[in-house]
Amino acid sequence: MPILVMKFGGTSVANLDRIRRAAKRVGLEVAKGYDVIVIVSAMSGKTNELVGWVNETSPLYDAREYDAVVSSGENVTAGLMALTLQEMDIPARSWQGWQVPLKTTSAHGQARIEEIPTDNLLGKFGEGMRVAVVAGFQGISPEGRITTLGRGGSDTTAVAFAAAFDAERCDIYTDVDGVYTTDPRISDKARKLDKIAFEEMLELASLGAKVLQTRSVELAMRYKVKLRVLSSFEEPSDEAGTLVCAEEEIMENKVVSGVAYSRDEAKMTLVSVADRPGIAAGIFGPLAEAGINVDMIVQNISDEGTTDMTFSCPTDQVKRAEKALNDAKAAGTIGFEEIIADTNVAKISVVGIGMRSQPGVAAKMFKTLSDEGINIKVIATSEIKISVLIDRKYMELAVQALHDAFELEKSA
Amino acid sequence: MPILVMKFGGTSVANLDRIRRAAKRVGLEVAKGYDVIVIVSAMSGKTNELVGWVNETSPLYDAREYDAVVSSGENVTAGLMALTLQEMDIPARSWQGWQVPLKTTSAHGQARIEEIPTDNLLGKFGEGMRVAVVAGFQGISPEGRITTLGRGGSDTTAVAFAAAFDAERCDIYTDVDGVYTTDPRISDKARKLDKIAFEEMLELASLGAKVLQTRSVELAMRYKVKLRVLSSFEEPSDEAGTLVCAEEEIMENKVVSGVAYSRDEAKMTLVSVADRPGIAAGIFGPLAEAGINVDMIVQNISDEGTTDMTFSCPTDQVKRAEKALNDAKAAGTIGFEEIIADTNVAKISVVGIGMRSQPGVAAKMFKTLSDEGINIKVIATSEIKISVLIDRKYMELAVQALHDAFELEKSA
Repeated sequence: MPILVMKFGGTSVANLDRIRRAAKRVGLEVAKGYDVIVIVSAMSGKTNELVGWVNETSPLYDAREYDAVVSSGENVTAGLMALTLQEMDIPARSWQGWQVPLKTTSAHGQARIEEIPTDNLLGKFGEGMRVAVVAGFQGISPEGRITTLGRGGSDTTAVAFAAAFDAERCDIYTDVDGVYTTDPRISDKARKLDKIAFEEMLELASLGAKVLQTRSVELAMRYKVKLRVLSSFEEPSDEAGTLVCAEEEIMENKVVSGVAYSRDEAKMTLVSVADRPGIAAGIFGPLAEAGINVDMIVQNISDEGTTDMTFSCPTDQVKRAEKALNDAKAAGTIGFEEIIADTNVAKISVVGIGMRSQPGVAAKMFKTLSDEGINIKVIATSEIKISVLIDRKYMELAVQALHDAFELEKSA
Repeated sequence: MPILVMKFGGTSVANLDRIRRAAKRVGLEVAKGYDVIVIVSAMSGKTNELVGWVNETSPLYDAREYDAVVSSGENVTAGLMALTLQEMDIPARSWQGWQVPLKTTSAHGQARIEEIPTDNLLGKFGEGMRVAVVAGFQGISPEGRITTLGRGGSDTTAVAFAAAFDAERCDIYTDVDGVYTTDPRISDKARKLDKIAFEEMLELASLGAKVLQTRSVELAMRYKVKLRVLSSFEEPSDEAGTLVCAEEEIMENKVVSGVAYSRDEAKMTLVSVADRPGIAAGIFGPLAEAGINVDMIVQNISDEGTTDMTFSCPTDQVKRAEKALNDAKAAGTIGFEEIIADTNVAKISVVGIGMRSQPGVAAKMFKTLSDEGINIKVIATSEIKISVLIDRKYMELAVQALHDAFELEKSA
């Protein structure tokens, strides 16, 4: 029988009633003839409670023990979901990560999946089991200890199972009903997309549209897993949600698919850096070593042998970035006059696969912002994305203006 | 290094503060030179919460899923305890049942321990680990699924580890400070025992003194594990608690060690049973098949070919017992006039190894009750115990009178 993977997030299994509701959806797919692999998160709030206990017990905790504690929430949901399905007369059983086994690296707290042998589950499907409920977010290391995959790891678990079992589709049930052209809380013209390409979703996921974890989209793209994001609170329907799929499967290719934003980006400027070859490596080497996620980089035009270097990084890494740069200055590897950190900025991005073949998107974006009197501080582009840093107070205005300019309220 | 097993019950690990307190006690033993195996229960209330969810989801639940859900509470405590010990600079790690592995039968919900290989833990002790924190109450079946050992199974886990690792002692930390001559809530003359023999403890455990699970005492007796019961809320001391040990190690052997009671016993009488050979089998066969725990049995003197048969069983099994007997009557395998169930009784027992060699205990017990005007309804005896059923309203009076009569307030 064809296999379907269905993943339910924390709000979709927050209590016994919601677990029953989720189980009914699983039942619909079983009735259609699918063997189903269900991936469950912990009941919402449970993981935070466990993480809180670990942090209170040991601020610099042993990540192996963190994983042993924090993974327990998913085990509870998996067992309860299996019981609920059995009550509906659907042959089901639960599997913890180590039982599958979902084999990972030993990088506790952020392990990467290495292998998912399929024989255990396929054997049980062969014996008449119709649903395998698997605890998400967890696996087992080569040393036989429990690992977790990092926040949002259940999405990644789901996609990895879909890839390993060659599933027809991987449905991610969450509390939003799909991927939108922009955040509906910012623009009431935001429109749900029926389909979106992996590459676009990847840019949107990493740009702050918190629907799917970036790693899960990467994995889906690599293994060509059809991903569907949909709400577990809406009536079931074949048209529900947004399908994340290969570019070729999307007929209606618009130039721009969505407008994303992020409040968590800070702008850092190094003033009067000596402008000589290798200076960029001198700056960004220490930042990389300190684990700073540098995003955009801009170098000003050189003026009498010195230049200003500007970059952006997550707001909560500003202090660490300053320390790394001041240390490098003290060690004599780089020279600059001062560091100016501006945390009062926002990043706005337009994303669209169509950009690759359609010129003029950047020009249109810049003109739209300029017409609204919004000054652009930093620009960065990729093949399918243009991002700008602006004053945070203009964030909503910019999103709305760009959404209008690219006519995202209309479907293609 | 010598090995010590320390078990902490739910109230001793009810929150992070109490876990820290328990960890300090572990630290004291490590400082004395022990390698310690710590067995932990779930934080108090957690297991009940999980059991509640399972029952609400599926009243006739699949016991394999029950075990997968319910075992998660202990995993959380084990990880938190290991982290707490690490914070105190004591090398520690947590182990879940399947990691040890603690191998059990497949009888989910009430599995029996089959084997505890010692190489994993001893290997880690050899590498410098000082404390192995093991999640109690759980193991792994031959099929690779999680099993639980039944209520109070963490005591059994602790004793089994002590036996497998040839531990010097197994300390059971709980919320009472030892085993008493009787319940201090009933008699203010109740005295804590310094030592008690396994056999006596076994009778007391099964008679309603809820300090230790019966199975754990049986296991300790079989493998000659020195068990100490003590409170985690008292100051540490070598004299704390009660040592449960082999008879030979107790110098001060009193004839009677304690007076136990139970409210949960009902008296059932079958009136006018045809008195012929095989009738006892005809009655108690069906009861055994229905899972009724029959305790005391008394057969009246035969009167014109019929007799009355009286037995006791737990109050909550009365309905089931009645059904089993009426079914057997309908099937024609036994005949009787009526069943009289009296749930308004209490069982009082005096227990003591010394009884074996000292006659007159029964006579003294009966006289004491008679002097108080208490009528005895049923009598049952074993080598080291005499139990009687009396009207429940006399329960406290009987316990106090017997405690006085056998001078239990005085140490030997």
